[in-house]
Amino acid sequence: MATQKPSIPKGTRDFSPIEMVRRNYIFDIIKNVFQKYGYLPIETPAMENLSTLLGKYGEEGDRLLFKILNSGDYLQKIRSQKSEDSSSKSIALDSNKLAPFISEKGLRYDLTVPFARYVVQHRNEITFPFKRYQIQPVWRADRPQKGRYREFFQCDVDVIGSNSLINEVELVQIIDDVFDRLGIVSVIKINNRKILSGIAEIIGEADKITDITVAIDKLEKIGLEKVNEELNQKGISKKAIKQLQPIINLEGKLKEKFPKLLEILKESEIGVKGVEETMQIMRHLKDLNLKSKFKLDLTLARGLNYYTGAIIEVIAKDINIGSICGGGRYDDLTGIFGLPDVSGVGISFGADRIYDVLKELNRFPDDTKATTQVMFVNFGEKEEKYCLPLLSQIRKAGINAEIYPDAMKMKKQMSYANTKKIPFVILIGENEMKDNILTVKNMNTGEQVKILLSEFINDFIA
Amino acid sequence: MATQKPSIPKGTRDFSPIEMVRRNYIFDIIKNVFQKYGYLPIETPAMENLSTLLGKYGEEGDRLLFKILNSGDYLQKIRSQKSEDSSSKSIALDSNKLAPFISEKGLRYDLTVPFARYVVQHRNEITFPFKRYQIQPVWRADRPQKGRYREFFQCDVDVIGSNSLINEVELVQIIDDVFDRLGIVSVIKINNRKILSGIAEIIGEADKITDITVAIDKLEKIGLEKVNEELNQKGISKKAIKQLQPIINLEGKLKEKFPKLLEILKESEIGVKGVEETMQIMRHLKDLNLKSKFKLDLTLARGLNYYTGAIIEVIAKDINIGSICGGGRYDDLTGIFGLPDVSGVGISFGADRIYDVLKELNRFPDDTKATTQVMFVNFGEKEEKYCLPLLSQIRKAGINAEIYPDAMKMKKQMSYANTKKIPFVILIGENEMKDNILTVKNMNTGEQVKILLSEFINDFIA
Repeated sequence: MATQKPSIPKGTRDFSPIEMVRRNYIFDIIKNVFQKYGYLPIETPAMENLSTLLGKYGEEGDRLLFKILNSGDYLQKIRSQKSEDSSSKSIALDSNKLAPFISEKGLRYDLTVPFARYVVQHRNEITFPFKRYQIQPVWRADRPQKGRYREFFQCDVDVIGSNSLINEVELVQIIDDVFDRLGIVSVIKINNRKILSGIAEIIGEADKITDITVAIDKLEKIGLEKVNEELNQKGISKKAIKQLQPIINLEGKLKEKFPKLLEILKESEIGVKGVEETMQIMRHLKDLNLKSKFKLDLTLARGLNYYTGAIIEVIAKDINIGSICGGGRYDDLTGIFGLPDVSGVGISFGADRIYDVLKELNRFPDDTKATTQVMFVNFGEKEEKYCLPLLSQIRKAGINAEIYPDAMKMKKQMSYANTKKIPFVILIGENEMKDNILTVKNMNTGEQVKILLSEFINDFIA
Repeated sequence: MATQKPSIPKGTRDFSPIEMVRRNYIFDIIKNVFQKYGYLPIETPAMENLSTLLGKYGEEGDRLLFKILNSGDYLQKIRSQKSEDSSSKSIALDSNKLAPFISEKGLRYDLTVPFARYVVQHRNEITFPFKRYQIQPVWRADRPQKGRYREFFQCDVDVIGSNSLINEVELVQIIDDVFDRLGIVSVIKINNRKILSGIAEIIGEADKITDITVAIDKLEKIGLEKVNEELNQKGISKKAIKQLQPIINLEGKLKEKFPKLLEILKESEIGVKGVEETMQIMRHLKDLNLKSKFKLDLTLARGLNYYTGAIIEVIAKDINIGSICGGGRYDDLTGIFGLPDVSGVGISFGADRIYDVLKELNRFPDDTKATTQVMFVNFGEKEEKYCLPLLSQIRKAGINAEIYPDAMKMKKQMSYANTKKIPFVILIGENEMKDNILTVKNMNTGEQVKILLSEFINDFIA
C-alpha cells in the first residue's frame, strides 16, 4: 500500500493530552454541578433515523445534517424502481431526489431533538418531572471557521414535565454555580417569549412575531437603525416600529422596568403573563445571592422558534466571544413525536467557547495532577527487575507512576520526564539497591535527596 | 407535521440514567488505572477520511464502514463526468463504483487506525515513547445480534515508540488492576506471534502462517478435529499437520512447557526469540503477585494479522462470554501513514462485555451516590421561597439535592422520590418554618425526625 499523508476531515479536531485534561476539567465541573441539582445522565446514539432529524431545524438545518449512506447495495432501491418508473434515471443524478433512496440515517445535529425522541420512546419507564443531562458531540456540515467546528460538544441540562418556574430559577443557579467554579465572571440575560408575543400583539403585528424577534435579537450586533430597517423590510408598519422604540430602549433598574413594561403591555394577556413570570423568577434569584449578574434583556430571542416562556443567555463579562450558555422553556417539543402538552425547560453550555474563555483568561488550573507524578529512570535489566515491585507499591498508594521502558541514555530519559512535566524522578542504581533506598530528584527545584520508599510515599500523600 | 413513532437505528442504543451510572463506574475505574500507569488521554474525531480507513480492516472491514454522504450537491462530480465519460450512467447505478464519488468520509471503525494516523500527523509534537489511552465509541455496519452493536465503546491503551518488554508486563498489570477493582476474576492468556511464525517455519509452511493461526485460534470453539480439517483444506501438508499436534496440545506447567517448546523450535531463530520474549514477560509477572491467573496459550492468535510479538487475551473466569480484553504488539502500524519502524503494544477493554459480566455477577456497587440524596417536598409558594436558600446550603455542602418543582399531592411527590431512589426527604410546612427546623424522613426505614439544618448536614457528611 502506498504511503498516505495523514489528515482529518476539515472542521474536525484531534484532542491532545493537554487539551483533554483541560476539557475534562470543564466537563467534570459541569457534570458535578448538574448532579448536585438532581439531574441524571443519559446518552443517545450518534446516528438517528433521518425521519427523527429532518424538519426539526428548518431548511438550513436539513441541509447541514451529515447523512449516512445505507449499508450494502444502497442503490438497490433505485434500480428496482427503474422498470416501474421512467424517472429513475433523473432521480439517480439529482442529489436531493436521490438522497432519501440511499440514506436513512444521519448524525445528530443537537441534543434537544434526540432528547425529545428519547422521552417519547421511553415515556413508560420515565418518572416525570424528568431531570436529565447529556454531554455528547454533535455534527453540523457548516462551513468551518475560527471557533466553529463540524464536530463539537454540547452540555445540555433539561427538566421535562413540570411547569413550575422553580425550574428556571434552578437552571440560573446552575449557570451561576458552574461559572463561579470555573472562575468566569458571567452576565445572565433573561427574557420571556410571552413578553415578545405581547409586544407584537400590542403593536398590532401578532403574526409577525418571528420577524420581529429575529430583527431585535440583532440589536447589539447591528444597532438600532439597522434593526428598524430590517423591521421595515419585513413589512412591519411605520406605526408599529414607532411603538416598538420605547420597548427596545427600556432603561433603568429592574424595579423600574417591570412596572413600565406592565403598563405598556396591559392590554395583552400573554404579555402581562410574561412579565409576571419573569418577575417571579427574578424575585427568587434575588434571595439566592448569586455571584453572577442577571438582567432583563428584551432584545434576547435566540433566533429559535420553539421557546415559549423564559429565554436565557449567558455571556462572559471579560471577553467578547458571544454566548457561552443559553436556553429556555419550550412547551411542546415532544408533540411531533406523539406526546403533546409536555412542558420543558433547559440550557446548553458551549464547551468549546468556555475552553477558549478559560484559555484567554489563563484560568486553567495546574495540570500536574492528571499526568504522571513519579518516573523511575531505567538503568538496565537488573535495576528494572528491582524497580517493578517498588513501582507497584507507589501506584497502590494512588500515585501515578511509570518507569522509562528502555535503558536509554540518562539525558533522553530526563528530557522525557521534563516534556511530560513529571515532577519527581527516582534513580535506583547499584548503591541504592544495596542500601535499599531511593534517590529522588525534584524536577522543579533540581534538588536531590536519598529517602526510604515508605517515607517518599508518606511525604507525597501528606 | 405528522406524528412519528420514535425509534433509533437498529444496533444502536439509548443509555438511561441507571445504565449511564454503571457504565461510568466501569469507565472511571479503567481511566483511573490507565492514569496510574502514566498513560494520557487523547480523542480523535468520529469522522475520518475514507482514505485513512479503507484497506486497513480487510475486505470485510471495508464493507462494514459507515460512509458519510458528501455535503451539498454530492452528485456534482458524477454529473460533470457525464460529458467526458459515457460510463457515468452505469457508475450512477452501481453502489461500489458510485461510492467514491459521493462519499469521502467514514465513521471510525476502531481506535487503533485513528491512533496510528494521530501519531504520524502529530509526530513533531509527541515525545516518544508515547503512552496514550482513548475511550470512545466506534461504529460497524455489522448485523446486530445479542451483545453485538453497531455503535459500541472501546477503551484502548497503547504505548508506541518502545521495544521494551516492560511495556507488555505493564499492560498485563493494568489488566490485573482493572479487573481486580471491578471484582471480576480474570484469566490472562498470553502468546507470541513469533512463536506462531516459528511453528510455521519448523513444519515447513512459513508462507501459510495466517491460515495456520486462523485455524488453531478456533481450537476452543470447534475442537481439534475440525481444526485439523481446516488446516487440511487450506493445503497444509499431512506431515505438517502431524508435526503441529504436539505443539497445539502442549501440556504441563510453564516451567515444563518452555523447555519443551524451545526444544521443538530450536531450528527456528524467530521461534526461539518468541519463546524467550514470553519467558521474560512471565518472569517479571511472577515477581508482581498478580491477582489474575496468567497462562501461555499457543492457540491464541486473535485473528489479526498485524500483531508481531506478544498477543494477549482476557476472559472472565466465572462467565462464558468470550474475550473481555485483548491486544498485542505490532511493529509497523504507522508505516502505512509514512512513519515506518515504530513499534507499539496495546490492549483494548470491551466495555459492553464487561458491563454484561458485572450485571450477570451482580457486582455493580450501590448506585445511590450518583443520584439525588435529598429531596424537599413542595408545599406551595411560601414554603418554596423558604426552602430555596436551605437547598442552596445543602448543595454547598456537596450533597446532591433537589426540590420537587410543583406543589403536587404528597403521594405523587413521595412516589417520585421512591422511583428515583432518593434516600432522604425533607418536609417543611408551617410548623417547621416557625421553629426553624426540618422534618427529615428516611425513605429506607420510614423513620421521621425533627432536626436542625446544620445538624442534618453534619450527620450527612460524617
